[in-house]
Amino acid sequence: MPILLDGQPDTFFEAALREAEQGLAEGGVPIGAALAMDGELLAVGRNLRVQKDDPIAHGEMSCLRNAGRRQTYKQTTLYTTLSPCEMCSGAILLFGIKNVVVGEATTFPGNLTMLSDRGVNVTLLSDPRCVRLMTLFQERHPEVWAEDIGRA
Amino acid sequence: MPILLDGQPDTFFEAALREAEQGLAEGGVPIGAALAMDGELLAVGRNLRVQKDDPIAHGEMSCLRNAGRRQTYKQTTLYTTLSPCEMCSGAILLFGIKNVVVGEATTFPGNLTMLSDRGVNVTLLSDPRCVRLMTLFQERHPEVWAEDIGRA
Repeated sequence: MPILLDGQPDTFFEAALREAEQGLAEGGVPIGAALAMDGELLAVGRNLRVQKDDPIAHGEMSCLRNAGRRQTYKQTTLYTTLSPCEMCSGAILLFGIKNVVVGEATTFPGNLTMLSDRGVNVTLLSDPRCVRLMTLFQERHPEVWAEDIGRA
Repeated sequence: MPILLDGQPDTFFEAALREAEQGLAEGGVPIGAALAMDGELLAVGRNLRVQKDDPIAHGEMSCLRNAGRRQTYKQTTLYTTLSPCEMCSGAILLFGIKNVVVGEATTFPGNLTMLSDRGVNVTLLSDPRCVRLMTLFQERHPEVWAEDIGRA
């Protein structure tokens, strides 16, 4: 069932979730992201560690790469199916992204308090669909997951 | 004149510096990086914001991407011509890189104290060649530099 944001299914978050599902189907780490501004979807992206042999291609990073160069991110919202790691949190702070919508922080806590402390508006959805995707992957490929978060 | 590390010109740092010089020649942000382990150069990379329209391709990130997937980074040293930003510092922490050699922190302070506080061994070279490259670029293209560090 879609997540409701302000009482409506959020199409941007659903776009991020579709990226995560596509990642799982490809044998990759199932984390997806979307960047939006003023009601417009700017880009989506997904974790491509497995698919592209690219360790920095976390979902959020792929999405930011796909969005291309921007003068500023002040009005953007970043949607991600999983709580951002230190690298992705650093990117959020570097580029001054002020709004982050997070699918879940159950299977990986990330740095949500740090982001909030630094002035980022964080919305945590606790979407069971995201938890299910990550749990499935972590059970199937614990070694890839450990590698992706530097714990191998 | 090459920087001396342990009394010897450091070939890995020189490789990072060549990447930065190549970046400048291409019209890009002149920051380069190298990743080495056990006396072996694993990868080099440079900032590709301008060349590839890629905002996440800072020097350190390009280098980590070029190194491909690794189980662990514990024995690696990351060389970078400029003090790492929050995104790149986050990547260093995420992947557990324990040694970072930094060309300069004059034209951009970065987060060296935070990295040290988190257990990273930081060597700051204060290499005037790196300062010169960045000063040249910042004077020529202040708007691109501001964009690269999220201050546009």
